[in-house]
Formats: sequence, structure tokens, C-alpha cells
Amino acid sequence: MVNENQHTCSASSSSKSDGGSSSGSESSKESSRCSTPVLDAERHERLREKMRRRQDSGDKWFSLEFFPPRTASGAVNLISRFDRMGAGGPLFIDVTWHPAGDPGSDKETSSMIIASTAVNYCGLETILHMTCCNQTKDEITGHLQKAKRLGLKNIMALRGDPAGEEWQEEVEGFNYAVDLVKHIRNEFDDYFDICVAGYPKGHPEAENYEADQRHLKEKVLAGADFIITQLFFRSETFLKFMKDCQAIGITCPIVPGIFPIQGYHSLRQLVRLSKLEVPQEIKDVIEPIKDNDAAIRNYGVELAVSMCRELLDSGMVHGLHFYTLNREVATIEVLKRLGMWKEDPRRPLPWAVSAHPKRRVEDVRPIFWSSRPKSYIYRTQEWDDFPNGRWGNSSSPAFGELKDYYLFYLKSKSPREELLKMWGEELTSEESVFEVFTCYITGEPNKNGHRVTCMPWNDDPLATETNLLKEQLEKVNRRGILTINSQPNINGKPSTDPIVGWGPSGGYVFQKAYLEFFTSSEIVTALLKALKKYETRVNYHIVNVKGQNITNAPELQPNAVTWGIFPGREIIQPTVVDPVSFLFWKDEAFALWIEQWAKLYEEESPSRMIIQYIHDNYYLVNLVDNDFPLENCLWQVVDDTFELLN
Amino acid sequence: MVNENQHTCSASSSSKSDGGSSSGSESSKESSRCSTPVLDAERHERLREKMRRRQDSGDKWFSLEFFPPRTASGAVNLISRFDRMGAGGPLFIDVTWHPAGDPGSDKETSSMIIASTAVNYCGLETILHMTCCNQTKDEITGHLQKAKRLGLKNIMALRGDPAGEEWQEEVEGFNYAVDLVKHIRNEFDDYFDICVAGYPKGHPEAENYEADQRHLKEKVLAGADFIITQLFFRSETFLKFMKDCQAIGITCPIVPGIFPIQGYHSLRQLVRLSKLEVPQEIKDVIEPIKDNDAAIRNYGVELAVSMCRELLDSGMVHGLHFYTLNREVATIEVLKRLGMWKEDPRRPLPWAVSAHPKRRVEDVRPIFWSSRPKSYIYRTQEWDDFPNGRWGNSSSPAFGELKDYYLFYLKSKSPREELLKMWGEELTSEESVFEVFTCYITGEPNKNGHRVTCMPWNDDPLATETNLLKEQLEKVNRRGILTINSQPNINGKPSTDPIVGWGPSGGYVFQKAYLEFFTSSEIVTALLKALKKYETRVNYHIVNVKGQNITNAPELQPNAVTWGIFPGREIIQPTVVDPVSFLFWKDEAFALWIEQWAKLYEEESPSRMIIQYIHDNYYLVNLVDNDFPLENCLWQVVDDTFELLN
Repeated sequence: MVNENQHTCSASSSSKSDGGSSSGSESSKESSRCSTPVLDAERHERLREKMRRRQDSGDKWFSLEFFPPRTASGAVNLISRFDRMGAGGPLFIDVTWHPAGDPGSDKETSSMIIASTAVNYCGLETILHMTCCNQTKDEITGHLQKAKRLGLKNIMALRGDPAGEEWQEEVEGFNYAVDLVKHIRNEFDDYFDICVAGYPKGHPEAENYEADQRHLKEKVLAGADFIITQLFFRSETFLKFMKDCQAIGITCPIVPGIFPIQGYHSLRQLVRLSKLEVPQEIKDVIEPIKDNDAAIRNYGVELAVSMCRELLDSGMVHGLHFYTLNREVATIEVLKRLGMWKEDPRRPLPWAVSAHPKRRVEDVRPIFWSSRPKSYIYRTQEWDDFPNGRWGNSSSPAFGELKDYYLFYLKSKSPREELLKMWGEELTSEESVFEVFTCYITGEPNKNGHRVTCMPWNDDPLATETNLLKEQLEKVNRRGILTINSQPNINGKPSTDPIVGWGPSGGYVFQKAYLEFFTSSEIVTALLKALKKYETRVNYHIVNVKGQNITNAPELQPNAVTWGIFPGREIIQPTVVDPVSFLFWKDEAFALWIEQWAKLYEEESPSRMIIQYIHDNYYLVNLVDNDFPLENCLWQVVDDTFELLN
Repeated sequence: MVNENQHTCSASSSSKSDGGSSSGSESSKESSRCSTPVLDAERHERLREKMRRRQDSGDKWFSLEFFPPRTASGAVNLISRFDRMGAGGPLFIDVTWHPAGDPGSDKETSSMIIASTAVNYCGLETILHMTCCNQTKDEITGHLQKAKRLGLKNIMALRGDPAGEEWQEEVEGFNYAVDLVKHIRNEFDDYFDICVAGYPKGHPEAENYEADQRHLKEKVLAGADFIITQLFFRSETFLKFMKDCQAIGITCPIVPGIFPIQGYHSLRQLVRLSKLEVPQEIKDVIEPIKDNDAAIRNYGVELAVSMCRELLDSGMVHGLHFYTLNREVATIEVLKRLGMWKEDPRRPLPWAVSAHPKRRVEDVRPIFWSSRPKSYIYRTQEWDDFPNGRWGNSSSPAFGELKDYYLFYLKSKSPREELLKMWGEELTSEESVFEVFTCYITGEPNKNGHRVTCMPWNDDPLATETNLLKEQLEKVNRRGILTINSQPNINGKPSTDPIVGWGPSGGYVFQKAYLEFFTSSEIVTALLKALKKYETRVNYHIVNVKGQNITNAPELQPNAVTWGIFPGREIIQPTVVDPVSFLFWKDEAFALWIEQWAKLYEEESPSRMIIQYIHDNYYLVNLVDNDFPLENCLWQVVDDTFELLN
């Protein structure tokens, strides 16, 4: 929104934004007993309701602006940046519209796909920017329909840059942002939350400041829900603007756009595009240090922090919008110094929720995908109903096929060379595979001195929770029990526990111990003997790539392995071991050996043949210890198995 | 079935009984994630499947035959006998068809209504007898349709007694039981399980034993699922009969009918009707003691026990069917001596399930009706869907009105005079009401020397579980906190715990502490002050008869107060405190003051006015302590309340 132009304006839309609360309660009415009791009210609210709730509670928030990347690998990086920056608890992010980059297309670098990935796969409340000039009504309607279909709920309505140097009105098209606001309200009623841009110094092309204020009011009257401002360099600029807006009857939220200066070059470019003037006192500091990036960034952080403090202290500002320029360091630093970066945001559920509206009530997932949540979302994207789907009246599980392991939001962050360093340039035996697994668990470097920070089944280092099991995991991986997923048993820890807690405070969370691993048929034979002693205490599913399936699970019932008890609510059981979806996971888990690991090596190479052998001959095993109040017996099961082998 | 006549016969129906298993699995397919994970397989099976399962597992079973009562008070007594004898764990009961008693009518004494009550309100698998002679096809179809509508799933198909002295075939009508079997299969396909009668000595009207055997085989071939025999006096009689049946290819289950001799008169009458001959050795014992009822009964028990032992020891008998003559003592004595009476049958859920097929998947109820389960079933009988109903997609709770507090299956077992003795011939103040509540809790006699064994809200003495809270309950009732429902908190006791356990073994059960009581507005004011200190730890609902409603429950969400964790299954949460259904319960709970208590007294009498005053001015309160792992704080809440009052 740095270079948005606009011409029209006037008045308040409080009635519009009030209208929203009803749609929030409608969605919770739809939910049946089976859906998540409203654990996290925000999950069921639209963006304008969330803003209002935060304003009412006095809970200050922040949001982050990104632009779409230019390359495919840029997209992979941006998605993992979303995940990292999402952890700090932004109220929303927004993705700019990049007219030159085919923004409404299905390319992985398009604004549409990046925004949709943020919503669906990163679980972020997301605003998609959209400009209207130089486009037909039908093109715009098409973009909006696509956005809706992809789960986007918020649009930043902008004019965009004119095609030529000089601005010319088009008779049949959209000329101003207000036209786009009206169009969205006409065609999509109240479906989208609409944001518009505000210019604290007045739009550069507006006749004057007062005319620009009137244009803004017109956008709000046309149905905009809130305003995000262009960047500015002094808090007074914003506060004056805000008072002027209020004076002419604009009552919707106005969010200041914050631009932490990150470098001499980017500042100059921005200033040129936005036609803003940098105050002399800032120029005076920057010019002498213009070649010292670190010094400029430090200064930019200082400046942003003190301006943000003034804004927040004014009592007129409830949220801050950051122009990140797709960088992390400066923005996170500012937020941390303001105390607004949530180091340990409370999890509403033990897994990362998607922000697609139809998944708002999703409250249960199989444990298998816990390290591959994006793959799970991908494979269930066609489900009509959550939390139903596989567990609902429809008896068909209908998991989507996962054929393309290279979708950018599923792709490993590490390039091939790095993976080879971690997983071995050359494998000589099954034991060298055991060694890779063991190094991943221990965090120790492998024999070539490289740390194994990811695995085909886990793109991130070991979870804090799994760390609790580290010692035992190391022991068993060394001996060929190649673990890919596990959780300890938990017998009623407070829901606020920093490691295993989730859900609202005042509750208690529970887990059954879980262990999932690949292992050889020789070990499986011994394991089955060992399991006889445990009868119903331990449930197991043992399956090979051909689908041979050995289990003692009663019928095809799921086994709840994570649940929580909360004040005034029904029981939540967000994670299950489900025998049916295990068979779908099995296909994916076995395929990852080949797709992510074997294919790093030449065909017919010994390394590749070793992985292929494991793929063809090993079993995938999961074990649940049902006696969660007792000491986890799964390690004993494994010990008994090894004893039988000796 | 004592006096059934029959004429036709021949062959095996194993294919028929095999066909049944598919319908069982169909019904479990219907159930969604939200329904009870199959905790108790038998709950989902039809009778013939249950028999097969018991036969396969070697678990011997028994069943009980009753006839419909002659009077309304007889119906009340029979229903409470069903509850008591149901506790011993019969596989099913059956109710005879009483042609003279308008058996298909809606009278509370009709065979149809008694059988339907056993299914719906007592949760008993039930066979309804039905005779076919002297009735038109349409009448019979009407009876069968009604039986199906009422939730009956099993029919004992009989001929019945001819109208005149001599048997005459009717050209257009049904002449033999086999006609009825065929008719049921024609009109209702496989919906009903069908039982037919077998005659170990041959039917008295059959040409000979062999002809009778052929008639029996014909009934089985026509679609009968199993056979229950006429009574007999020697085990050899049955064993020979069984071998003869097998020899001509009858392979369905054959259940021996056991008649424990209970008195000289009843034996003579039975012998006359069934045209059986009593063996000389039995006559020799009975004649000399014919005036000594106790002696005859003891002898009858001895005789039955030894005959049953012989039958069971033969290895050919898997279940025993008892002709109870609507009496308890002798049959229970025989069953106890055989070790077949289950003193402590495992509860599949913490509340008594109904056996209506549409309630097979019911897995959650509000706690409010826990002492009035029949009323809950009555008020939800129109629900189409379980476990949904109030908790399902339908947002309307749709509880039926409870206008008639005198429905025989809801009626107190105690007559008016007895209630007056317990609850006071004359009340002088609110305190005399407190006294009644206190005596009910303590079990001590009231000041007139009568024990208070029931209350309008509890037709039975205090539950064993509630006994755990006795001391505190006594204290608070004395001071005007008039408790009507409560449960202690439980933090993970084994599911096999004899007092609070339920569900399959190997699980853990949990409860949040619950307390429900009537109390004055003065106490409510203090209580609300006291509750401030407990914030979200304690959820409360406080309501008066006019519907004034004070609560801190988040929105209208139910609070789970009983749940269980089992091996290989999803979480079960069978009991909730539901804010919406509480308002329906409130109407019933307040009305019981008037309907069951005030109306014992003359209009305008001081006693009646005291109860009316309480009804009009007291509040109904429920409290939940959400912190189930800690010591129950509800007693502290009440203590704090009293302290504020002092």
C-alpha cells in the first residue's frame, strides 16, 4: 500500500462494523455438540470483531505486512518466515497485490497463493490487498470469488498505480478505491472484512489534506471496516490525523502503519515511491552512517520503539501495523522491546489450527501428521465439514492423494546439498541410516561434523516436548527402532504448562504415551511376542508398505491420545490414533523415504538401494500406552523386544 | 406360553440367524464420531447376536418371563420389580400376551405397554408374546407395527387358545404359530427377532411327539430365530428333546423353560393348563407339605437348582428361561445358588440406558435427571436422534412437557399414607421441611419414628456414591440448603471401581464435584457474594420458578462432569451440566414440590401453604467445582456462605 493513489472520500461506518457480531454467533450456532466447545473465542470471530474485542479488553496487538516473493525458493522462505513470525502472535498479516506478478494466478509467487497459504497452512488471519485500476469488473469479481473460495476473508481495497505516468479516469472501470469497496459490498454483501488506506499527511495526489480526509470518509461510508495508514515519521503526525478523522465522523479503527528504518537504500526507495518527506532530524542522523547497515538498523529500531511508545501511551492506538519489507529482525526487535512479541503464546489446541473459515470448528486430528500439519491440511482440503470429515456421518475417509511432494508449502527449507550433509553423502548399510536418526534425536553432529536438524518426517528440530523422551529415543534408534513421532504420557498437568499445555487457563491436559517408528520385520516379530504380555494396555498398529496390517485395536475405533478438561466446557480430545487414517498416513510416511531421501542419490547407487530396501521391507509401527496415570510402559515393551532378540 | 397350541412343523434356520449379524454392524456404521465408541458391544446387538456371543464365550445367561398385571398399582409394582430383577443381569425378559386384557391397547396393564415400558424405561431387552388365533391379519399387523414403533424388537410367535372348547381351523385367519412367523417375516422382513415355543413332551394336541417335532422344525424354517421350551420336571426330558431336535436338523438355540415350584396351588393350576403330568416322585414330596408354602418353595428351589445344574453340566445348555409367575424370591434364590445372579453388574455408562433401538447410541445426558431417569426418557421420547437431540445440529432442545406426574412408570412406589408418614402429617415451618431432607440424608427416623426412604426428587434411598458425602450433606440440609442431587469429585479411579466405576475394564473414570439444591433468596444473596472468590473454579446456575436465571457459565456451553478414558477408544463424557436443559429440569423440579408433596395436604392447609411458599420463593441452584484434581471446594463455598450470613 506504499504507492496507492486515491481520489474520493466521507463519514462513519459503525453500523457496518456492528453488523458483524451476528455472523460470528451464527457460526457458533452451526456447531454441534461434537465441535470444539468455544475454547478460543477469536477462532470464531471475524477480523473486525477481534479488533473490537482487543480494543475493549485493552490488549494491544500488532500486524505484519509482506509482499509476494519473486522466486519459488523465495516463496518457501517466506512461508517459513510466516511460521516463525506467526509464533509472535500477530493479529493478522497482509500480503500486498503485485500487479506485475500475475497476482491472482495460481503461481506459487502470486499474491493470491501466498495469502491463501498464510491462511490455510500457517493459520494466520490474513488480509489480501487488491487494486482495481486497469482491471475490468469481471476480472476483479473473479479475483474476489477465488479469494473467497481459498478461505480468504479480508480485503485491503486499493486503487493501485495508473498504467501511464499521468492518472486518467476510465469511464467503464474502477477509478478509485471507493469503487472497489462498493463493488465488494454489492457483490459479496458482508462476507469480506474490508480495510482501506489512510494518509496521515494526505494523499500526494489529493487536492489538499481536507479533500483527502473527505475521500477517506467516503471509503468508510461505502463499507470499509477499518483503516491502515501509510507510514509516517512522527507520532504527532498520526495523532493529529486521527483527531481530524474523528472530527469529521470517522469512528472505525484506524491503525498506524509503522516502518522501522532498516537501511539507507530501502528508506530512499520508499520515500521516492510514497512521495513522503523524511524529517530533517532523521536525515541528520542517517546521512553520516549511511554505509553502516547495522548502525542504521539500530537507529531505526530506536526510532520506531520510541514512536510506538508515544502512540500507545496516547491511549488512542490499540494496534500497530508493521511494514516488514519481508524481513524479520528489525520488526521483531521493536516488538520485543515494546513487550508485544508473545514469546510463549498460549496454544488453543495442541496442533496449529488453520484459519480457513470452514476449519474454524475443526477440533480433532490424527496424531500421525503432527510434524507435517501442512500435509494434513492439504490432504483434507476437500473435506466439506469439520470436525466431521473422516469422523463424521460420512463414512468415507476421503483423504486426498499426496502425489506432489514438492508443493512449496510442503517442501523442506533445506536445499539438497544440506540434506546430503545431514543424511549422508553415501550410505553403506542400514546402520548408517540408524545413525542419522540417532543424530537427529541427540542433536550431536554426525561423523562428518554436521548436525541433523530435520528428517523427511520432521522438517524442524525435535519438539521441546519430545526432548523429554530424548534419552530413551536415542537408545532405541541406535538399535534400529527408527522413531518418527512420539509423545510422553501426561496425567493432568495445568493447561498453562509451558511445554505440554494448551487451551484456556484453569484446565487440565492429559496424554497417553505414543511411539511411532519404522523397524525391520525381525524386530516386529519379537515385538509382537513382547506385546502379548501387555494385552489391552498397549494398542498397536503395525503395517508395511504393501498394506499388511496387524493390530489389536477394537474394531476401527479411534483412540484418544490427547485430551483436555476445562472449566464450564465439554471435554476436548484434539488428537487421536485413528486406524483408518493410519493407512493413509502409511502411504505418505513410506513415500517420504523415497521422495525425500532416496532421490537425493543416483539411481542404482548403493545409498539409494539401502533406502529402497528399508522402504520395501520395514514396517511402520505405532504404540499407545493406555495406562496414562502409570509410568510409560512403551520403553519396557521395546526393552522386552530387544531381550527376546538376544 | 404355558397354554400354547400348535400344529405344524420342520428344518434348520442357521442361515436366518446368520443373516442377523449384518444388521448389527449396519447400526454401528450409522454412528458418527460423536456417538458412544462401542463400549458395550451387546448394546448394539440384536437378541440373537447376543445369544450367539454368549454361546461363543461360554458365558451362561438367564431370562425371565412375566405376565401383565391386572391393576394399575400392579403395574407400578411390576415396573419396580423389573428394575430390581434387571439388576441381576437377565439377557432378556418376556411379557406374555393376555388376550382377555386388551393386550395391544394403551392401558397401563396391557401386554404392549408393559413390554414397552420394560424396553424404554427399564432398559431391558424384551420379548413381547403375541398370539394369532381369533384375530384378523390387519389386527395382527397393527399390533406388530405398534410394537415396532414403541421400540420392541423381539416377538414370541404363538397360536393362542382357541375361542371355543374345541379347536377349529379358520379359513381366512391364522391357525398356527407358523402362520404368524411367516406373516412377520413377510411384512417386517428381518426387523424382529422371532422366538417360538417348543414342547419337550410334545404338544398335548399334537398327534404324537414326532409330528410335534416336525411342526417345530416348520416354525424354524419359516424364520424363527430361537426356541423357548414349555416347562418340564426332569433334565432328561429336555436333553432328549434337544437331541431329537438336532437329529431332525433344528440348529437354532433352544432354551429350556424352568419353573421353580413356588406353591401347591400354582403348580396344580399350571399342570391343569399345560396338561403336563407331575412325576410321582415330586407328588410324593409335595402332597404331605401342601399347606406349608415355605417348605414347598424351598423344595421347589432345590429341585430347580439341581435340574439347572444338570442342564448346564450337559454342555448343551447356554441359557435358562425362568417362569417367574411375577414373583422374585424363588427365581432369584435359584439364580444366586447357580452363581448366575450378577450382584454387581458392570455399568456400561453411569446412568441406566434405555433399550429402545433409537437410543442405542445415546451417550450423554444432563446430570439433573440422574435420580429420575424415567422422566428424562419420557421427556425426550420424541427425539429422533441420539446422542444428538439437544446436543446435535438441531438447535432446539425440544424437551417434552411433563404434565402428567402420575404416569405409572414415573409414579412413586410409596402410597400416600406412607409418604405422609415420611414427609410429615403436618408441617409447621420451613424448618420442618429442612428436617425431612436431613432425615432422608442421614437415614435416621424422623421425630415420629419413620425413616424417610424417598423424596419427590429421589424415589430411592441415597445412592452409595452420595453416601460418600453424607456428613457434609447432613450439615447443609439442616441449615436450609435442601440438596436434591450431588456427586463427589473423582480423579481417575479405575473403571472397575465398585462404587463410581462404569464402562469396560482397563479404563479410568473422572468426575467434577456437583451439588444441586433448593434454597431461600437470603441464602442465594450470600452465596453469590461467596462465589466471587472462586471465579472460574466454580460454575453456577441459580434459577427460581419464574425463570430468573443467574449464571457464570460461558455462553450456553455444557460442562462435562463425568467422563471416562478407556483403552483404544475416544473419550466418553456421559454426564453434563447443560444450561439449556437446566431450564427444562427447573420446571419439573419445582413442580414436584406441588405435585408430589403439597398435594398430599388439604388445600389452604398450613402444611400445603408452607410447601407452596418454598415453591414460589426458593431458588434451585447447581454448583460445579471444575478443579477435579483438588479437594472439592463446594463445601467451603457453602461454609463461606453461612459465614457471610452470620
